[in-house]
Amino acid sequence: MKRLLLNCDIGESFGAWTMGLDAEVMPFIDCANIACGFHASDPQIMRRTVALATQHEVKIGAHPAYPDLVGFGRRSMACSPDEVENMLLYQIGALDGICRAEGTQVRYVKPHGALYTDMMRKPELLRAVMKAVIAYSPALPLMLMSTRDNRTAQMLADELGVTLWFEVFADRAYDPDGMLVSRSQPGAVHHEADIVASQALRLAKGEALIASDGSALVLRADSLCVHGDNAGSVAAVQRIRQTLQSLAG
Amino acid sequence: MKRLLLNCDIGESFGAWTMGLDAEVMPFIDCANIACGFHASDPQIMRRTVALATQHEVKIGAHPAYPDLVGFGRRSMACSPDEVENMLLYQIGALDGICRAEGTQVRYVKPHGALYTDMMRKPELLRAVMKAVIAYSPALPLMLMSTRDNRTAQMLADELGVTLWFEVFADRAYDPDGMLVSRSQPGAVHHEADIVASQALRLAKGEALIASDGSALVLRADSLCVHGDNAGSVAAVQRIRQTLQSLAG
Amino acid sequence: MKRLLLNCDIGESFGAWTMGLDAEVMPFIDCANIACGFHASDPQIMRRTVALATQHEVKIGAHPAYPDLVGFGRRSMACSPDEVENMLLYQIGALDGICRAEGTQVRYVKPHGALYTDMMRKPELLRAVMKAVIAYSPALPLMLMSTRDNRTAQMLADELGVTLWFEVFADRAYDPDGMLVSRSQPGAVHHEADIVASQALRLAKGEALIASDGSALVLRADSLCVHGDNAGSVAAVQRIRQTLQSLAG
Amino acid sequence: MKRLLLNCDIGESFGAWTMGLDAEVMPFIDCANIACGFHASDPQIMRRTVALATQHEVKIGAHPAYPDLVGFGRRSMACSPDEVENMLLYQIGALDGICRAEGTQVRYVKPHGALYTDMMRKPELLRAVMKAVIAYSPALPLMLMSTRDNRTAQMLADELGVTLWFEVFADRAYDPDGMLVSRSQPGAVHHEADIVASQALRLAKGEALIASDGSALVLRADSLCVHGDNAGSVAAVQRIRQTLQSLAG
Repeated sequence: MKRLLLNCDIGESFGAWTMGLDAEVMPFIDCANIACGFHASDPQIMRRTVALATQHEVKIGAHPAYPDLVGFGRRSMACSPDEVENMLLYQIGALDGICRAEGTQVRYVKPHGALYTDMMRKPELLRAVMKAVIAYSPALPLMLMSTRDNRTAQMLADELGVTLWFEVFADRAYDPDGMLVSRSQPGAVHHEADIVASQALRLAKGEALIASDGSALVLRADSLCVHGDNAGSVAAVQRIRQTLQSLAG
Repeated sequence: MKRLLLNCDIGESFGAWTMGLDAEVMPFIDCANIACGFHASDPQIMRRTVALATQHEVKIGAHPAYPDLVGFGRRSMACSPDEVENMLLYQIGALDGICRAEGTQVRYVKPHGALYTDMMRKPELLRAVMKAVIAYSPALPLMLMSTRDNRTAQMLADELGVTLWFEVFADRAYDPDGMLVSRSQPGAVHHEADIVASQALRLAKGEALIASDGSALVLRADSLCVHGDNAGSVAAVQRIRQTLQSLAG
Repeated sequence: MKRLLLNCDIGESFGAWTMGLDAEVMPFIDCANIACGFHASDPQIMRRTVALATQHEVKIGAHPAYPDLVGFGRRSMACSPDEVENMLLYQIGALDGICRAEGTQVRYVKPHGALYTDMMRKPELLRAVMKAVIAYSPALPLMLMSTRDNRTAQMLADELGVTLWFEVFADRAYDPDGMLVSRSQPGAVHHEADIVASQALRLAKGEALIASDGSALVLRADSLCVHGDNAGSVAAVQRIRQTLQSLAG
Repeated sequence: MKRLLLNCDIGESFGAWTMGLDAEVMPFIDCANIACGFHASDPQIMRRTVALATQHEVKIGAHPAYPDLVGFGRRSMACSPDEVENMLLYQIGALDGICRAEGTQVRYVKPHGALYTDMMRKPELLRAVMKAVIAYSPALPLMLMSTRDNRTAQMLADELGVTLWFEVFADRAYDPDGMLVSRSQPGAVHHEADIVASQALRLAKGEALIASDGSALVLRADSLCVHGDNAGSVAAVQRIRQTLQSLAG
């Protein structure tokens, strides 16, 4: 059985401001989605974060975003496909430049925040993202959201030659289309450690989840999104890690 | 005789604002110092500029700067050597990321504005710049200012393994140390096309200039700095190009 | 008859970059929509622009925008009403601070670019804009777009106590709802000076225009938007000014 | 005896990043130096901070800085006096704009970080700061550092008509000139609560401190700088507040 990689947003401090328990969560993850200076981080923090990931043998992913520091990349912006393509090349390259000084390199790309959401909704943006990723390197997978039907994304990726890593969530409820239930709905977020670990295990095994309408939902799962925001989420990551390791053993 | 390469700051537009006659001057230069988004430019403009340089077979140089768009990178900032090293890695990588989409790459590095001036004055900043350049790639030369005595820079470069390209000026008067006479002094800038072309020729031949105190000044000259700001400066570049070509012939 | 005020976007240079013929167009306009540093301009340019407007006795308007320099404020951003309200207070205050040093003050507010378009489409953003304007000063009118039916905007303004200045266009075709015909449509922009001057005159007189479907369209018109981008648009402003002055005579 | 006002840097969060225990320290201070968006803060945070200060009847001070978010305004920048003057007008006005929506206004100005240090060292920058303050309003005092000999600053202030508030420190050692002993020196920072409270009391009473060379040092003291960074510094502020109140009683 293929191993389900744990990915986590990392390196989201900025200048004098600190965010996230990067050093605490890094030992338990496989893939670090490292901010590239557009929604968070700066060259100093990127250098420190790349060094930390390297020390723990964690794969380095570029985590590019819209140019919106004050909004943390969470506000959709009406950027053209060309703008998106070029801002990705810029950010992937910038992180890769930092990586060179630590003897490593960018291994995959996962867009951040509103850019991630927008690329899942707008095919012309997804194509722009893929064009940037494949132009940067055919060896870079693009991480994107797994849904019930991933065929549109897969066809586009096949056309352009991009490898896809499908991402799933253990702490969120899914709707019948395999989209996340909005946080404004009751039950959208799983808070119980047992439920989260159990959903992670089902996803890792390829077993069906129960969607919000009661239907069975099987999701392709290459990577599971986890969080290092606070002590509670770091504990959740450890729990998920243990659960998945028992599976591997 | 080694050919004296003409280098020019290029791609210094930003968003909706245009600066410089890039398309007009590109056919006459050898090396394009391309802004990387910290003092000027953005991913869209970088992409367009890299494409233009590639079309004219002009070498692409990264032109990194202090993070100061409103001051165009001309204001000295008290950045630490670590900050300088990492901001260079970031900017070189960002431009190189854009280059990949045009099938090319960064070939050298020339710091911009106040960062260039500061690195010539402060050995710890010059070392930081060199550490970034060599970490990015041993194949990247660093372009810096030629002075009467280049030994300090050369020793540092030898220690770190960096190739240096020494830059000279045809339109500026030099003081006895081989530093540029301040623009606030009379005679600091040569405006006559004949004088500029003549100084370019002397520099290309390795002949001595007359410094501001009347002493003879021989400068190591790998590249000559030219300008594409306006029609007059583009005409000056054409004139210099013709003068140097007669030498090669 | 009330005089139709000519308003023009002004002070849209940024740092080392120049945009627009501010000095050329200023003598012919009544109201200067001055950029506040979010889509264009900086404190130096704002100071110079306020001084120029004061010299020509032109009313100073704040021209606030989304925080998007690289996109010139033309890209819609998903900002909340609270964010919009506070970014307006910030920008109006900033310009007013500059005005104090020139012995003058902000006289009205006209949002810029995508923020202008978004507030015309989204009542919650229009309310946020109005809340900022009235909180800043009950003496500040808000300039917004005149359409066939201005009742929704007027009711909101009445509720909050905001004075409205309705803006019209002489160089654009209108659709039956009194919205501008999209630039992507043929005939959307009037290029002939005679047609532009004639439309300005009809608007000033309160006469009906012919909308794109042939229907008569009467627009409330307090101010006419003109442009100072280039020599041609400055000439157009002079022509409009002369045409309207004959009316006043 | 005049009351020694406690001033504290406040509102230095930015976007999604939090800094400082603003709500905890606000009840114990007299003057809040509120960041204006150039080194920290944004319109949302400024609004929230102004509301908090107003709720606790704390005087609102503008805390303008160099335009350097990533460096938190701590890096000296080679800005011209004109640039400094205009960036101050911009920032004071911006904060005052936010204040209007909370029914209050800016009461004084204290420059931040490297700008504060630079204005204390360079008379042309101090003049530029004063020109901005007096142009904004003759009612605004400027807070600056008290030293052994404040005559130069006082003469300049008298010439321009600016009121000065001299600031002192209870947790720092002074050199014989009344400048702070560099943090790199042993004994530069007082960590013992008793010593800090004792120095605060001496300053409030107008009694001499012992400078680093053993000489007696009397400092004019209008305001005492305190900190709300963490629980320890908030506790120190409470202790200072109690000590000074016993004096007033």
